[in-house]
Amino acid sequence: MSSSCENADCLAWAARDESGFLSPYKFSRRALGSDDVSIRITHCGVCYADVNWTRNLHGDSKYPLVPGHEIVGIVKEVGSNVQRFKVGDHIGVGTYVNSCRDCEYCNDGDEIYCAKGMTFTFNGVDADGTITKGGYSSYIVVHERYCFSIPDDYPLASAAPLLCAGITVYAPMLRHKMNQPVFSTSLSKKEESLSLLGADRFVLSSDQEQMKALDKSFDFIIDTASGDHPFDPYMALLKTAGVLVLVGFPSEVKFNPASLNLGMKTVSGSIAGGTKVTQEMLDFCAAHKVYPKIEVIPIEYANEALERLIKRDVKYRFVIDIEKSLK
Amino acid sequence: MSSSCENADCLAWAARDESGFLSPYKFSRRALGSDDVSIRITHCGVCYADVNWTRNLHGDSKYPLVPGHEIVGIVKEVGSNVQRFKVGDHIGVGTYVNSCRDCEYCNDGDEIYCAKGMTFTFNGVDADGTITKGGYSSYIVVHERYCFSIPDDYPLASAAPLLCAGITVYAPMLRHKMNQPVFSTSLSKKEESLSLLGADRFVLSSDQEQMKALDKSFDFIIDTASGDHPFDPYMALLKTAGVLVLVGFPSEVKFNPASLNLGMKTVSGSIAGGTKVTQEMLDFCAAHKVYPKIEVIPIEYANEALERLIKRDVKYRFVIDIEKSLK
Repeated sequence: MSSSCENADCLAWAARDESGFLSPYKFSRRALGSDDVSIRITHCGVCYADVNWTRNLHGDSKYPLVPGHEIVGIVKEVGSNVQRFKVGDHIGVGTYVNSCRDCEYCNDGDEIYCAKGMTFTFNGVDADGTITKGGYSSYIVVHERYCFSIPDDYPLASAAPLLCAGITVYAPMLRHKMNQPVFSTSLSKKEESLSLLGADRFVLSSDQEQMKALDKSFDFIIDTASGDHPFDPYMALLKTAGVLVLVGFPSEVKFNPASLNLGMKTVSGSIAGGTKVTQEMLDFCAAHKVYPKIEVIPIEYANEALERLIKRDVKYRFVIDIEKSLK
Repeated sequence: MSSSCENADCLAWAARDESGFLSPYKFSRRALGSDDVSIRITHCGVCYADVNWTRNLHGDSKYPLVPGHEIVGIVKEVGSNVQRFKVGDHIGVGTYVNSCRDCEYCNDGDEIYCAKGMTFTFNGVDADGTITKGGYSSYIVVHERYCFSIPDDYPLASAAPLLCAGITVYAPMLRHKMNQPVFSTSLSKKEESLSLLGADRFVLSSDQEQMKALDKSFDFIIDTASGDHPFDPYMALLKTAGVLVLVGFPSEVKFNPASLNLGMKTVSGSIAGGTKVTQEMLDFCAAHKVYPKIEVIPIEYANEALERLIKRDVKYRFVIDIEKSLK
């Protein structure tokens, strides 16, 4: 799927080692298969996963590593069997690009939970043994099953973060039928939360008095934090039979069984979402004009963007303008 | 509610200090109120809670402490407003004897999750400030709301463990609509599990090969262990979207977020059950002739029984024959 050679035509930025430093890189994508769509990438969102894998924080990074799994663009070519897309369509690709397409989860449109394991969009080992390369690149070739239709009137740059961050929150909201108030560990997010994001209320989780006042008042909490944090204080905010959904990856989950048992509470996990719910989420965002708040950056800013992500200095998603900056 | 005095008429066995040693004790129950039922206790199950509180393991024991919250007996007197019971009826009392009877949970028959807190059957602080005393005693006076009807053809001794152990497992089975295979940390329970208890299969959780063979094969697990144990190996046995319900109280719950998130799995808590589901469970056990396996003992054996509980040397529940032995 990828090799650096003279006739390589895919421009990208890749990390070469555990420093995670990104620099220009050229490689070849696979030839277009009959079920594949070739996509000219216009934008790619910057996810914390890009930090983790460029820096080998999970210990399984394969270099050169091209990150990016919030990919949007325009269809430039389709295989002979492709039904859902035609040249010129706006299209998106999220966190996975392959699965067995034969198990109960794939059959339910829940490919991300594929019984044989799905293939991550970058640093994944694909069915043919090649290593996948992500959206910090000029184009990508993906089986149409793992591509999403972006409604024409939805700005492509804004669509990018929906493919990972958006679906990660949307899928459990749907599954658990919840409304979601906003918590934050950072006071600097207060003003935006209330005005721009339409939150009902902002609570600084480090303020014990504010937290105490919310004791047993939540039906649901979506915990998006991947940094280590205590769970008991949040579980105390849940009503009886309340649900905390964890979508982040802290180093461990630890709580007192009384926090769970005494109110028959639930801690549930979730990652992104299958193709069915992802397309539904995109259509929902378009229909209700829900747009993530983004900061569009050129590819040359990618290294600084990752550093700012590490410092939690972003409101709320960097999106790389591949189309204008990756030449 | 209780005081040792000359005309005290309730015979009991009580722990006097943190040694947990039980010895004969006399006290008075409260006078029968208009909504109360007075119950001549025939049997009382021995629950691990009796070990914990006689020995002050939770640090809140109030001595003298009369344990026991798996109480069955025969109605000997009813208050003027009591509708559901008459003298001579077979009756049971579980882990709680009071609640606010006014919150959403009480109104739903989920009194154990009362918003103002329910009153434990022993060592609990009742609405009037008195300390409740449990079923290692000759009789008890309880508001009819917290009493359960034991079907006439169900052996009273067998009914006792249903009031805590039984409902603790039944309530989450019902809530999560599950079937329950049998796990055990103890090989000595294998034969009984398969033959007597009707398990489909017995798995020794310390055998990694047996556990590995069951990877992603369970829809549900009820974790009844109150001893400290790892959670990740059990969560690995759950299918995608599988549910582990914890009903025990180990010192902490700790697992890797990947164990939860990657298969959108759920860890849920539960304690006993409200009056509605408890009565339903009793009727179910009677209709389907489901009987717990018990070892009936005299009250004089209570201290040894608690010691054996600590050593996990019981198959599967001690039931004290109060009627025959407490004189």
